[in-house]
Amino acid sequence: MTTPAAGDPTDSRPSRVVEPAAPETAAGPGRLIVLEGGDGAGKSTQAGLLVEWLRQRGRPVTMTFQPGGTALGQRLRRILLDPAVGDLDPAAEALLYVADKAQHLAEVVRPALARGEVVVSDRYVDSLLAYQGAGRDLDPAALARLADQWGVGGLRPDLTILLDVEVGQGLGTIAAPDRLEQAGDDFHQRVRDGFRRLAAADPDHYLVVDGRAPVAAVAQTVRQRVAALLDQD
Amino acid sequence: MTTPAAGDPTDSRPSRVVEPAAPETAAGPGRLIVLEGGDGAGKSTQAGLLVEWLRQRGRPVTMTFQPGGTALGQRLRRILLDPAVGDLDPAAEALLYVADKAQHLAEVVRPALARGEVVVSDRYVDSLLAYQGAGRDLDPAALARLADQWGVGGLRPDLTILLDVEVGQGLGTIAAPDRLEQAGDDFHQRVRDGFRRLAAADPDHYLVVDGRAPVAAVAQTVRQRVAALLDQD
Repeated sequence: MTTPAAGDPTDSRPSRVVEPAAPETAAGPGRLIVLEGGDGAGKSTQAGLLVEWLRQRGRPVTMTFQPGGTALGQRLRRILLDPAVGDLDPAAEALLYVADKAQHLAEVVRPALARGEVVVSDRYVDSLLAYQGAGRDLDPAALARLADQWGVGGLRPDLTILLDVEVGQGLGTIAAPDRLEQAGDDFHQRVRDGFRRLAAADPDHYLVVDGRAPVAAVAQTVRQRVAALLDQD
Repeated sequence: MTTPAAGDPTDSRPSRVVEPAAPETAAGPGRLIVLEGGDGAGKSTQAGLLVEWLRQRGRPVTMTFQPGGTALGQRLRRILLDPAVGDLDPAAEALLYVADKAQHLAEVVRPALARGEVVVSDRYVDSLLAYQGAGRDLDPAALARLADQWGVGGLRPDLTILLDVEVGQGLGTIAAPDRLEQAGDDFHQRVRDGFRRLAAADPDHYLVVDGRAPVAAVAQTVRQRVAALLDQD
């Protein structure tokens, strides 16, 4: 994982946050791989195929997701996706997503990385930035600081795989639309643009794949990039 | 209410936050009065007496509380105070409290102030700073920035009434202890010290009252200070 340099005087993260040293175990150093993209882009399918392939290669893997990868997260997810909640204040909504991340990092992601595992997460910080920043009215820079400082304590993925799908092409697998899916095409276009901007700004840590390509072809592209990453270990 | 000067270049609040102008209605400008202190210090009793007195004086009043003063807040409060939740990450816990505040400000506090009402709130930002900052391990300055920027958008109370009670003297009214009340005396001492430090740093906006004084005497002291505040309107 990529973390800011220790002792950076501009680093205003809470003092309790301690970066785990990447342990050089027999399993290799911990690696964080994230799948991002809109609903119906195929993230969970590709996450499952990637995890299966990693296990066949003998790497210990934790497969997880945001929001909802912990007991707290499940309770927050029910609140966040419930149409009955109605007018959720945008700041309150963002804070709940960040709380989900903080608990997920403490309970799932950091312990697995400390054990030297590959963590494959379906969504991470980019989803927050795309949906709540680009998609709604929150200041993207303030939101990025909030997520970085309070949600993930500066822990960035080694690789983010963006499954990119044109708006209107990705919702085929969704049966009952929730609050996010009820938003219009304009919203989903801003979200897609948000994801693509994040990827374009940091190509070394992103793989952008056409989510409408055949599943096996997408999986093959993902494996090649992940293999290149893990061959560095 | 007290708000930072507009256009302050050091102000990094999200751009969506707009301070409502204090309307000069027949009811007078909106005023935010907060009661703070430990559990069992008498906050809800004093809040009720203050509200009754304000109504007798003909001032429109909204009586409310944090956490839980909204439907979202009620759901978060159930999570936060449930002993079954167990090891809540300290950052996640703080974020849930701040989310409660954001929703409470948007849904209850700001609309009431915009109507020119006196808002009397049982707990506000100081409780977060005392319990999660002084009482636990989070950096107090980072927590204050989080609450100010994301929770209340810079809105500070006109007056905070701290009902101060020595540790061990204030829990007589509590039947079933929740997660916070299960913490030890050391924790509650740090919380009390935290409240007192906040009051000492800004005496113009605080009234510190001995919470063990007779209820009627406390109420009288509170009324005198509130009357002085409202006589400025």
